Amino acid sequence: MISVKARSTAAPGAPFVATVIERRDVGPTDVLIDIAFSGICHTDVSRARSEFGTTDYPLVPGHEIAGIVSAVGSEVTRFVVGDRVGVGCMVDSCRECDYCRAGLEPYCRNGHVRTYNSIGRDGKSTQGGYSEKIVVDEAYIVRIPDGLSLQEAAPLLCAGITLYSPLRHWKAGPGSRVAIVGFGGLGHVGVSISKALGAHTTVLDLTMDKQADAIRRGADDYRLTTDPTVFDDFAGAFDLIVSTVPANLDYDKFLGMLALDGILVNLGVPKNPISLDVFSLLYNRRSLAGTLVGGIAETQEMLDFCSEHGIGAEVEVIDADYIDAAFDRVAAGDVRYRFVIDVSTIG
Amino acid sequence: MISVKARSTAAPGAPFVATVIERRDVGPTDVLIDIAFSGICHTDVSRARSEFGTTDYPLVPGHEIAGIVSAVGSEVTRFVVGDRVGVGCMVDSCRECDYCRAGLEPYCRNGHVRTYNSIGRDGKSTQGGYSEKIVVDEAYIVRIPDGLSLQEAAPLLCAGITLYSPLRHWKAGPGSRVAIVGFGGLGHVGVSISKALGAHTTVLDLTMDKQADAIRRGADDYRLTTDPTVFDDFAGAFDLIVSTVPANLDYDKFLGMLALDGILVNLGVPKNPISLDVFSLLYNRRSLAGTLVGGIAETQEMLDFCSEHGIGAEVEVIDADYIDAAFDRVAAGDVRYRFVIDVSTIG
Repeated sequence: MISVKARSTAAPGAPFVATVIERRDVGPTDVLIDIAFSGICHTDVSRARSEFGTTDYPLVPGHEIAGIVSAVGSEVTRFVVGDRVGVGCMVDSCRECDYCRAGLEPYCRNGHVRTYNSIGRDGKSTQGGYSEKIVVDEAYIVRIPDGLSLQEAAPLLCAGITLYSPLRHWKAGPGSRVAIVGFGGLGHVGVSISKALGAHTTVLDLTMDKQADAIRRGADDYRLTTDPTVFDDFAGAFDLIVSTVPANLDYDKFLGMLALDGILVNLGVPKNPISLDVFSLLYNRRSLAGTLVGGIAETQEMLDFCSEHGIGAEVEVIDADYIDAAFDRVAAGDVRYRFVIDVSTIG
Repeated sequence: MISVKARSTAAPGAPFVATVIERRDVGPTDVLIDIAFSGICHTDVSRARSEFGTTDYPLVPGHEIAGIVSAVGSEVTRFVVGDRVGVGCMVDSCRECDYCRAGLEPYCRNGHVRTYNSIGRDGKSTQGGYSEKIVVDEAYIVRIPDGLSLQEAAPLLCAGITLYSPLRHWKAGPGSRVAIVGFGGLGHVGVSISKALGAHTTVLDLTMDKQADAIRRGADDYRLTTDPTVFDDFAGAFDLIVSTVPANLDYDKFLGMLALDGILVNLGVPKNPISLDVFSLLYNRRSLAGTLVGGIAETQEMLDFCSEHGIGAEVEVIDADYIDAAFDRVAAGDVRYRFVIDVSTIG
């Protein structure tokens, strides 16, 4: 076993404390990663506070991991010591079902193993990236291209692929009109990806104070959803609306902005059930869809795409002692646009 | 003007009475149709009872019209006197917008003209097929193939195209698994079309007493949705579920039966808002969609397909005096599987 310093929380709302966790020894197909940066995702906050009701404590969150390979197993073929690598939301899956074989591991018929708060193949709880090292099978590790710094790449492992996957799946590209709801950790990366894919991209947000950042990152338009005229101005206008906000929308109003065959993709987890009028779907043959994160191969494709187009996350690097304050700010939407923990401060 | 005998209702719940309505004279691109049969759609009942809140009285319903051409305008090129023809849910649209030009007239950006309870280009209210004759522009008329009788073809003009369009759009075919929810006026045609397209087809209904009919019409399986084990047995099983019932489903349970990228298409108009848990969409990247009827060209394609595959509606032909009783039976789901008015009994 490998002893690793980490930060954990013991109960909903309990402060993070320094701790030591055990990582498994490096197996034949495993890679040991010295973590450099670990992003703070809104899901980390929800999990730490047990908002989904299924959190096991003590909890070490973190599924936006960027670091350097420091050891490899005897059968590892894709990585060598010194490689710049990343780990996202999952560290294993059955590898045998049709969905895994199709590269859609998040939808594994036997359930994928999440990077933390999940049970691995060895029967032990997984612990995430708020820690100095992690051991992961090479099949669930991606390469961070030289064009991306580790700190700006870390959030791409969740926020980036969570946006890239639906934008690609639902064919954002030249000639299509995309709206990104919420310009935050997910949205700011999504705007850049959508624009780089060639789509006309509009940001819909609750405040105007991020407009300049959005335009700088490629947005063609930026509008307030608190302004009721926006729903008339954009009636039937978008081919794809991607909602990144973890809150209930007025679904009928947002669906009304979709053109023929338009799709509203919900990425966030709103607190209440989704409610809508069937006519919002009947008119213009619209769809409401959901999606999980993309698969491993697509995550690599996303990183290569982002490197090629100069798309990184905009981050505020913090020390590990700041995690509690950062969580409060994430919950309040007060971050531009992603906190990333400097893991060297954990010890 | 052309005086035509018809049956109309004067208020929500008022009995149908014999009346005379005026049809416009046959213009250059118009066709005069002697109606032989007119199907009774559930929408007729809802409209007559003003359940959508927008009914103009007196109302002559009917948008499943089959008859014979008895006169044509000077510029009509596609039809001659004696042709067997049909008219469905619409009789006009702008013809200029991108949706109309793409053959998707039901989604016309300027609003299509419904066959009844709508305002035509001449500014007058449209009146439907519970009448002896109708005048329609040839662009909104389809040809009924010789392989279909007029009475079994009439319901295809709405029920048939309403199922054919989503089954084609969402690619029901060899290798795909389709479920049709509700084996009624829409469902019984949908099962046959789905099977003829090559999809493995399951019926989900509230009663077992239509099972034999469903199997005869091509269903591979028939299951009760009142049996809770069905949702476990078919968890993640279907690529496409088409709900034909005008009632609220337990959407989370039905979405749970969808495989990766599966789509639940809602055709009916439930009384209450649709409510669902976002996780039902996130898992398996599922979609909930709606659709209107198909366009004119697709309606012709559907009739040709149905003729080729021997698919007609199963009808109970009624006299016009039976309309009130038929409406009560439609509302109660007591019809196998479509009432069709013998229009010769209207006079």
